[in-house]
Amino acid sequence: MKTFSFLDTIDRQLDWQRDLYRHFHQFPELSLQEHRTAERIEAELGGLGLESLRIGGTGVVTVLENGPGPTVLARADIDALPVTEDTGLDYASTVDGVMHACGHDMHLVALLGAIRLLSEHREAWSGTYIALFQPAEENAAGAQAMLDDGLTSRVPRPDVALAQHVMPAEAGTIGTAPGPVLSAGDSLKITVHGRGAHGSMPHTAVDPVVLAASIVLRLQTIVSRETEPGQFAVVTVGASNAGTKSNIIPDRAELLLNLRTYDPALRAQVIASIERIVRGECAAAGAPREPEFEYYDQFPLTSNDVGAHRTVTKAFTDHFAPGQVFEAVPATASEDFSRIPDAFGIPYAYWFVGSVAPETFRAAVEAGTVSSAIPANHSPFFAPALDPTLEIATRAHVVAACAYLRP
Amino acid sequence: MKTFSFLDTIDRQLDWQRDLYRHFHQFPELSLQEHRTAERIEAELGGLGLESLRIGGTGVVTVLENGPGPTVLARADIDALPVTEDTGLDYASTVDGVMHACGHDMHLVALLGAIRLLSEHREAWSGTYIALFQPAEENAAGAQAMLDDGLTSRVPRPDVALAQHVMPAEAGTIGTAPGPVLSAGDSLKITVHGRGAHGSMPHTAVDPVVLAASIVLRLQTIVSRETEPGQFAVVTVGASNAGTKSNIIPDRAELLLNLRTYDPALRAQVIASIERIVRGECAAAGAPREPEFEYYDQFPLTSNDVGAHRTVTKAFTDHFAPGQVFEAVPATASEDFSRIPDAFGIPYAYWFVGSVAPETFRAAVEAGTVSSAIPANHSPFFAPALDPTLEIATRAHVVAACAYLRP
Amino acid sequence: MKTFSFLDTIDRQLDWQRDLYRHFHQFPELSLQEHRTAERIEAELGGLGLESLRIGGTGVVTVLENGPGPTVLARADIDALPVTEDTGLDYASTVDGVMHACGHDMHLVALLGAIRLLSEHREAWSGTYIALFQPAEENAAGAQAMLDDGLTSRVPRPDVALAQHVMPAEAGTIGTAPGPVLSAGDSLKITVHGRGAHGSMPHTAVDPVVLAASIVLRLQTIVSRETEPGQFAVVTVGASNAGTKSNIIPDRAELLLNLRTYDPALRAQVIASIERIVRGECAAAGAPREPEFEYYDQFPLTSNDVGAHRTVTKAFTDHFAPGQVFEAVPATASEDFSRIPDAFGIPYAYWFVGSVAPETFRAAVEAGTVSSAIPANHSPFFAPALDPTLEIATRAHVVAACAYLRP
Amino acid sequence: MKTFSFLDTIDRQLDWQRDLYRHFHQFPELSLQEHRTAERIEAELGGLGLESLRIGGTGVVTVLENGPGPTVLARADIDALPVTEDTGLDYASTVDGVMHACGHDMHLVALLGAIRLLSEHREAWSGTYIALFQPAEENAAGAQAMLDDGLTSRVPRPDVALAQHVMPAEAGTIGTAPGPVLSAGDSLKITVHGRGAHGSMPHTAVDPVVLAASIVLRLQTIVSRETEPGQFAVVTVGASNAGTKSNIIPDRAELLLNLRTYDPALRAQVIASIERIVRGECAAAGAPREPEFEYYDQFPLTSNDVGAHRTVTKAFTDHFAPGQVFEAVPATASEDFSRIPDAFGIPYAYWFVGSVAPETFRAAVEAGTVSSAIPANHSPFFAPALDPTLEIATRAHVVAACAYLRP
Repeated sequence: MKTFSFLDTIDRQLDWQRDLYRHFHQFPELSLQEHRTAERIEAELGGLGLESLRIGGTGVVTVLENGPGPTVLARADIDALPVTEDTGLDYASTVDGVMHACGHDMHLVALLGAIRLLSEHREAWSGTYIALFQPAEENAAGAQAMLDDGLTSRVPRPDVALAQHVMPAEAGTIGTAPGPVLSAGDSLKITVHGRGAHGSMPHTAVDPVVLAASIVLRLQTIVSRETEPGQFAVVTVGASNAGTKSNIIPDRAELLLNLRTYDPALRAQVIASIERIVRGECAAAGAPREPEFEYYDQFPLTSNDVGAHRTVTKAFTDHFAPGQVFEAVPATASEDFSRIPDAFGIPYAYWFVGSVAPETFRAAVEAGTVSSAIPANHSPFFAPALDPTLEIATRAHVVAACAYLRP
Repeated sequence: MKTFSFLDTIDRQLDWQRDLYRHFHQFPELSLQEHRTAERIEAELGGLGLESLRIGGTGVVTVLENGPGPTVLARADIDALPVTEDTGLDYASTVDGVMHACGHDMHLVALLGAIRLLSEHREAWSGTYIALFQPAEENAAGAQAMLDDGLTSRVPRPDVALAQHVMPAEAGTIGTAPGPVLSAGDSLKITVHGRGAHGSMPHTAVDPVVLAASIVLRLQTIVSRETEPGQFAVVTVGASNAGTKSNIIPDRAELLLNLRTYDPALRAQVIASIERIVRGECAAAGAPREPEFEYYDQFPLTSNDVGAHRTVTKAFTDHFAPGQVFEAVPATASEDFSRIPDAFGIPYAYWFVGSVAPETFRAAVEAGTVSSAIPANHSPFFAPALDPTLEIATRAHVVAACAYLRP
Repeated sequence: MKTFSFLDTIDRQLDWQRDLYRHFHQFPELSLQEHRTAERIEAELGGLGLESLRIGGTGVVTVLENGPGPTVLARADIDALPVTEDTGLDYASTVDGVMHACGHDMHLVALLGAIRLLSEHREAWSGTYIALFQPAEENAAGAQAMLDDGLTSRVPRPDVALAQHVMPAEAGTIGTAPGPVLSAGDSLKITVHGRGAHGSMPHTAVDPVVLAASIVLRLQTIVSRETEPGQFAVVTVGASNAGTKSNIIPDRAELLLNLRTYDPALRAQVIASIERIVRGECAAAGAPREPEFEYYDQFPLTSNDVGAHRTVTKAFTDHFAPGQVFEAVPATASEDFSRIPDAFGIPYAYWFVGSVAPETFRAAVEAGTVSSAIPANHSPFFAPALDPTLEIATRAHVVAACAYLRP
Repeated sequence: MKTFSFLDTIDRQLDWQRDLYRHFHQFPELSLQEHRTAERIEAELGGLGLESLRIGGTGVVTVLENGPGPTVLARADIDALPVTEDTGLDYASTVDGVMHACGHDMHLVALLGAIRLLSEHREAWSGTYIALFQPAEENAAGAQAMLDDGLTSRVPRPDVALAQHVMPAEAGTIGTAPGPVLSAGDSLKITVHGRGAHGSMPHTAVDPVVLAASIVLRLQTIVSRETEPGQFAVVTVGASNAGTKSNIIPDRAELLLNLRTYDPALRAQVIASIERIVRGECAAAGAPREPEFEYYDQFPLTSNDVGAHRTVTKAFTDHFAPGQVFEAVPATASEDFSRIPDAFGIPYAYWFVGSVAPETFRAAVEAGTVSSAIPANHSPFFAPALDPTLEIATRAHVVAACAYLRP
């Protein structure tokens, strides 16, 4: 570890962080219900002598002003998932059917740790550090809630935004990449209308079951024929539902689609294709009413600024040991973090933090069972290795921020 | 009315029948729950000095032995439907959500009337008359329940079986036809298996939504290509359901099919085609498990014996006035009556009884609104004209039986 | 044979008819090329002292005026097929690749025989008899050609029109039916437009191969879902062609459809459905140009007038022996005869004449091989039994005409 | 130009090369018919005092042995295309319908030039240089023909193989990339069998038109659902043909597919999916015979060895000026070159040579019309800028070889 030697004082606070992590892991709260979580964050900030703002209901922000220099915004998400924990950990969730199965507890405690380090070592940096605890990432509602509650006018405008996420890679490593790192995700409910009838009288009906089937098959042609070969695009019909009885032709069918793209122009093209296909199929069927399109759970693209990526990655490789920083491949998951820098009109860097105990990970690599044997995010068995994940994630936040806040 | 002059005594009992009809209409009971209905039938039979048997839970049978001669079985169904009556009749259903919307109350009271006439005029016929009140026609369970409870060994073997059904034709008329008069109806639940995955990872899934869509489209080719043009066959997919979330590819899809045919060989052909198509599509999809086929609500074909049809129709045209007996066209509805004669291995005749007030019917014919303006069976507005429907239906049972039981 | 005893003089002319039949069978001519056939017909009519008209190129008409009374038009078609005869008959076709494989030679010689009988027995009837020899039935062009050439203004307006066709039933029998006896037949060429591209660049194309496939599958739903179950309708895509190379996405696809219906309203419905589906699918595909629809080989419905059917059938049953006249079932083949009575706005009767040697037919019935073992029309083995087919077909024309032309 | 100064002597031989280029361009020959081309190559080699071998009919190989050191094989393809030239060049093709529209004339003359330079400057290198002129690249037959004719046992085993291709980039530039640079391409003819019938009798048929349509739609799911999102895979049905008449249901359908992949495992997966889908659909259709699969025009993957790429690219950047060497993106076209190094089991490097006059190219870049305005390979307007393309391509061959053959 070559740079930012003040970070070695992290040893003094790691037990505090570990206790906090175990606490948050035991008391997870669902999206938009993170009341106790937010209160505890506020209490800890208060314990550090820091004031905080409530923004967006259960969002918490604290601003460390420390002389001239750039302004950096660091964000952690804080909500948990409707998953029943099955890890067997002694600090497993105590809340039935709710679990920090996506590691947001790790994110928030790492950010608390970074705040403490920066707060206690003001000589080591100069500028302004905004730490933001965001609710409701899982349903894509939290970043927007904070923006709707006036975030951009209630904190100084940052120059850059930073965020990180634990992933099933070897604990102790950090993955970065320029450009797209998480896909844009859109959900879409399509309702098509037919005309119901008794099952023995199809000629009096417009059969929405057949219509929906045609649509599902036709939608396949978007990826197979309309997007450029090799370009990333996913059009999944996750649900197709029509009718309840064998002998009643229903009067409508409902499709739930999920789209994933890395390119905004391609995303727009895919959406246009979906609507064109559905309208065309309804016309072919002689549908008595126009189809309805309802978009929901829309996650923006997470695409790292090339400059911010370079700055942060350089700081990581300077600080960490050889082999600790790797080039990440884009993940097909989605995030709402980018709404915040996009609202400010600023660049951002988003990176991954490995969370699997090294011996476990290496054994899985050798056995070729990384994807099958290691519980991924959202699994009831998801259990980050507290050490060294928590320390590395804390250091990463400080190192990335100080890449900008050097005195 | 030229024949069976003893039938003119029906005038003396019609008020009793009308009261019974209003009673049963007010107290409908669902399939297999016809307890009070069965008890009242037993009570009325007792009042006529007749003993009765309980067969199949809520089925009631009485046997009138009256000297040498053939044995005739006459059947009436007695169950009601889960429909909320909206007729506004002063004798409308008093049971919430249950209604005699298919006219079984008319059937059973006509049979009670026929029993009384035959019982009180034993000089007019010779042989054995078995009157059978069958539960649970609506879900195709009642005839089988009576057979499972030993019907064929508990009553004398009949030579012919008779049954009738009210329909939206002019009250006062009777429709008969040789051969198929009601279709065979089969319901079929098909479960196809894929492999679930996150919506962003289709390559790890076998998508059952796409598989089900392919099956639905392919099933259309049975009627369009595989059955003989002009032959009656219906293959309806009344329900197609898979998945609940946009971003989760489910692991199975469920289809509910309803089939209608008039020809047993064609029915077998259609069923074989369905299974062939579904298995082929599952193979094309690389489905990890075989599909499952579960048949239910299976109604047999109702196909009048040509001889029984001729005998009964001749008796009707001899007894009723010109124009009262018409040639019916086959209906696409289904019945379970034929299971009973089929179990005995005997011929049967099944006919329709018009139930719409003549002035109403004729006005609808003139306006071309018969199918749209006249409430059909299963409608909450279904309301047979008590007169003359009840009298004609009662006479029909006696006339048809006496065609065989002439002294 | 009870009526029209003058017909017994047919014995005196049968050898003349047999020779003519063998002649025409040996020298068949394709549609619109029936020059020698027409000339020979004219010559024979001249030999009978009759004048004739040429209408529609190779169509021949003669008019027998014989006092007051109704006017009857009798039509025979005269063209042959591009089939290579394989019957081994000693009077087989001498023209390579052309054969009277549909029996039009029988039709025309029977009509010549009827003309001679009526011409020589003018005492037996009163009115006007128009005998019409029509070219080009096989490609649906001949009736229209005669109409286009002024038929309706060049002959007296008939009161009824008559025509017959040999079929693979027992020779000596005649089949009649009211209403539809031959289906309407329509051919339709559909061209759909995509945008071509190299096979490795589907994203720059609009793929017409996929579009055509969607259309073909969707067209199945017309018969399976949109026509009434049991109603006769056929929608066949006989040809679907697109592309010539594996690695070039073509810019269009071509579908050839054939439709069969018995009901004009249903025919119109099916055509509307086809166009709706094709347009909808092109819209779904984002096709750069509208599809094109080109109708060809359109055969009208042949549907006997109920009154004409009754009159003619009564005359047949009065004249022929019991069992010789049977009720025909509608055939799925098509004819252009009805264009002529439709142009005049008059009723018509069309019947079938059995042409299989009785012993052969009865053996096939017993063996259950009627459809497999007896060569049908258009087969290279099609060979009507000259006797008694020719006599019965001749008598049928006279009997049917005299049903109207009784003195 | 910093390295290999002996290459400056190229000026002395460029006119000879230009004349040769114009000659070959004027006299193009189709695949496997390159007789005059091969003879002229042999003559030129003879003029340089070199012996040559005929391998694979019209393939020519010469081996320059020059002391100890590695062995390098350099390959040029020599066949032309069935394209009618429309360039208007004064040295345009004199052969009707045949044209060097893919630049193989450039490849072969550059290789002749390289041979002459190496032959005349033996002091500048040490080792063995094998120059191979391959026929029939366009139909993927030539490399295999040379291997079948014993290539691997008739020349020394090389240590590395080299090849290049002109492309529509700025003349004077060279593009290289590690790993896949050209896709694997496979063509596949699929024949599916139905049972023919008259169009009015679909129930006696197994309709191959409907079967082919189902297959086409189902094949779309390979790319849309079965390959990993973002992975390059193309499954194009370039031709789908069945039937010739509207009213005849044909007995078979034929599909021509083209596949493109960069990954051998993915290619195998796609082929397995195609066969699975086609077999499953045939089973669903009740096809009377198994489908047939016939693979043809199969091009292997061209994927540069990482080490060879690095060695060659380093030599290029050392020799050429800044900006002349760029990183190429993989092209979706295909080549059969790699069969040769694969048969030897040796690494290879394959690069692209720009061939568009710089001013033309830069104007097109500015106008955003590179893909639309510049004639690409296989176009009748394809016309490489002779200068400096020929010189650069010649130098490239020498530089790449000498990266291995340094003394």
